[in-house]
Amino acid sequence: MTENGCEYHERVLTVDTMNPNIKRLEYAVRGPIVQRAVQIDKELKMGIKKPFTEVIKANIGDCHAMGQKPITFFRQVLALCSYPDLLEDNKFPEDAKSRAQRILKACGGGSLGAYSTSQGIEMIRQDVARYIERRDGGIACDPDNIYLSTGASDAIVTMLKLMVSGEGASRTGVMISIPQYPLYSAALAELGAVQINYYLDEDNCWSLDINELRRALQEAKKHCRPRALCIINPGNPTGQVQSRQCIEEVIRFAADENLFLMSDEVYQDNVYADGCKFHSFKKVLFEMGPQYSSKVELASFHSTSKCYMGECGFRGGYMEVVNLDPEVKVQLTKLVSVRLCPPVPGQALLDVVVNPPQPDEPSYDTFIKERSDTLAALAEKASMTQDILNQVPGIKCNPVQGAMYTFPRIHLPPKAILKAKENGQSPDMFYCMKLLEETGICLVPGSGFGQRDGTYHFRMTILPLKDKLKVVLAKIKDFHQIFTEQYS
Amino acid sequence: MTENGCEYHERVLTVDTMNPNIKRLEYAVRGPIVQRAVQIDKELKMGIKKPFTEVIKANIGDCHAMGQKPITFFRQVLALCSYPDLLEDNKFPEDAKSRAQRILKACGGGSLGAYSTSQGIEMIRQDVARYIERRDGGIACDPDNIYLSTGASDAIVTMLKLMVSGEGASRTGVMISIPQYPLYSAALAELGAVQINYYLDEDNCWSLDINELRRALQEAKKHCRPRALCIINPGNPTGQVQSRQCIEEVIRFAADENLFLMSDEVYQDNVYADGCKFHSFKKVLFEMGPQYSSKVELASFHSTSKCYMGECGFRGGYMEVVNLDPEVKVQLTKLVSVRLCPPVPGQALLDVVVNPPQPDEPSYDTFIKERSDTLAALAEKASMTQDILNQVPGIKCNPVQGAMYTFPRIHLPPKAILKAKENGQSPDMFYCMKLLEETGICLVPGSGFGQRDGTYHFRMTILPLKDKLKVVLAKIKDFHQIFTEQYS
Repeated sequence: MTENGCEYHERVLTVDTMNPNIKRLEYAVRGPIVQRAVQIDKELKMGIKKPFTEVIKANIGDCHAMGQKPITFFRQVLALCSYPDLLEDNKFPEDAKSRAQRILKACGGGSLGAYSTSQGIEMIRQDVARYIERRDGGIACDPDNIYLSTGASDAIVTMLKLMVSGEGASRTGVMISIPQYPLYSAALAELGAVQINYYLDEDNCWSLDINELRRALQEAKKHCRPRALCIINPGNPTGQVQSRQCIEEVIRFAADENLFLMSDEVYQDNVYADGCKFHSFKKVLFEMGPQYSSKVELASFHSTSKCYMGECGFRGGYMEVVNLDPEVKVQLTKLVSVRLCPPVPGQALLDVVVNPPQPDEPSYDTFIKERSDTLAALAEKASMTQDILNQVPGIKCNPVQGAMYTFPRIHLPPKAILKAKENGQSPDMFYCMKLLEETGICLVPGSGFGQRDGTYHFRMTILPLKDKLKVVLAKIKDFHQIFTEQYS
Repeated sequence: MTENGCEYHERVLTVDTMNPNIKRLEYAVRGPIVQRAVQIDKELKMGIKKPFTEVIKANIGDCHAMGQKPITFFRQVLALCSYPDLLEDNKFPEDAKSRAQRILKACGGGSLGAYSTSQGIEMIRQDVARYIERRDGGIACDPDNIYLSTGASDAIVTMLKLMVSGEGASRTGVMISIPQYPLYSAALAELGAVQINYYLDEDNCWSLDINELRRALQEAKKHCRPRALCIINPGNPTGQVQSRQCIEEVIRFAADENLFLMSDEVYQDNVYADGCKFHSFKKVLFEMGPQYSSKVELASFHSTSKCYMGECGFRGGYMEVVNLDPEVKVQLTKLVSVRLCPPVPGQALLDVVVNPPQPDEPSYDTFIKERSDTLAALAEKASMTQDILNQVPGIKCNPVQGAMYTFPRIHLPPKAILKAKENGQSPDMFYCMKLLEETGICLVPGSGFGQRDGTYHFRMTILPLKDKLKVVLAKIKDFHQIFTEQYS
């Protein structure tokens, strides 16, 4: 009997009886280090003294949380859609009003509060298709191949889910880059699929090497059935931008090896380095001619969370499927219908992202200025980050060509590695935890993304406002030097 | 070689190679009949002549699409949160402004565009906890036990996912009512769990009979490991409201049989019938004393999509977990973190739902009037629906005590059943398809929710505006009589 007067009771749901796949999955971007950061933040607010006054979360690509301002036009349209009485208000520009009216007309009962079709509002899918056509120099895009989603994560998991089958040696294998964005490893663990690692080439700006793809595939064929190849371009966490040639090689490889291509292109507007340009897999595929464009199955993903708008909280996004088997498409549509529909405010936001103010419209100038300012600030911070980190002995940082992160390699002294092992931590977790405790800066250890054995990294966003980013980089520099001395 | 000049190519992803669990799942609420309704709607718009002028979608609980108006206060707060410049606008009431400011202060960078913590914004979880405490007469609620979600569906699937394990005879079994809301059967199919059917008692207002639970459980134990019991109260699609005594019996049953309780309470404000009252499982559990309240594991679900606000498109919702194993809770928090966060506009909406205008605030009177008008209109339509349908020979309809649906039993003549079988359709699908083609009214066949063999039903929402609902009911009446004559 317990103090409550009832017998000892074995719970139904325990870590021993729960879904073992869920136990296995890990998601470092919101893992233990972030939980500790939240705790430290609370301690600071309670008045507990620390060697710093604030926690700086450079662990996640959360633009607005880091002080980036939303695009005025987008928010005006969202306000008008939320409360259509404002359409009578002459403070709003006409183009915002007409966009809002057009969106509301496409909503059930003229309300953001109605469900949409599960694939997403048809008019918005048409707008997305036209946006893709403009982006890809006129290559056709069928709105029926567009699925709106709850952020890109939702669509990525949905496609993986569709693909996983088999047991033992015929279990579906999915190739992912290492380092990777841990959504992929987490989704594959949850689905019980086989994760096939291919390593990006750190010595060549984190580029993708086809020979490494080949090696990984041959090895994987021994114990699973490889069926899909995932690419993140621009890279997360690695910030590289793939060349057109590299993309062609990947497509040829996928065609030769019968792999379904999944291209995660959520950072397509985040390209900073001179000579780098974003090429969509869709465009390259179609420019390679019908022997590829009629054959290779492709799903590509985009989101409202990144680029210049950074609207993570709205959970907007879409995927385009190319050459998907029509019967599978029916199954996909059925699968997404179970969750009813993606959030309609996120769909509305996506509509203005793909259909922004035009040169003859009143909001155009402000829109262009806000967009360019944000992208210019990101480009400046990308270059500042790599410059300063590369000045630190023991830190080596590839150029941040695109996306929102740097993934520098850190040299850790053997004593630090030993100490980490004693603590049961990975050495870069030990390093990042110590950095957090001593400076308030929250990064994610490289081990959460995957890295070659014996190498250590961290992922840091370039998102803090310029002056704060300078402080962050200076603090990391000092910390690294002291840490190195301490454990040498 | 095909006309494209490339060899015949076997696709990677086909219905033969895809995830077999996805193939198996069905979701009738958005199934073939709805797809046909969308098609007919397009045909009408193209000018194709039909015996009717519009498609009336009575298949889904989509309030705003059916003409229900949003609550003004909620939309004002959402507009203010979306475009905070409006906080300077004196057209907005002070209470809406202060709610918006409070929500924005709890958002990263003061923006709806920032990610929230994966469990949901802490302040909003605190507001939800206080709301639950008020609802349940002061029984304590810990904000740490609240998980905000993307509609209730998301949270329900998450809990089921956590619970599924084992193979063969030790595979997790989950008890669901028949008729059920097909999210449950779809999620269980997707997860490869065993669906255990218990039948509601149609002759007793679709009430839940403990003996039937017992029967279903005993039978299921032969081929799986039953671990959870799902309850929908008020019922979907059946509209019954469970008595306090029934809930007590269910809790005792769950305690005796070691079952995890999942109570889907998204219609908790939708109770219309005299003498019926909503009792939350949480409240009843705690009133039954510590031998139950310290033991029975419970997850209960709520949503912003139903009740009087009907804001389906925002995908807001929450779940409360009670007596969840602390280690499992860590796993749950990790699992939800992979999807980053529920949509923040939906979280903001949930906050005003659980924290609406108070008597001393300027928006109170309007809020109360809008809420009561909506609920009164629903109550009137509930009673009108059952009255008119029960006048039709061959249709028998239980009282719509709550929720938003009626699930009448329809008598189908043997010739109609034969004809349906020739078409490869379930008889009630045949009936509903014919109704759609002849009247434009879209219902969902009972077979999509489950029903006793040899009985036939349909689910119809009570949501069309009163005058339209009258027309719908009159058309169904006429159709049923003609259909019966035609096949007799």
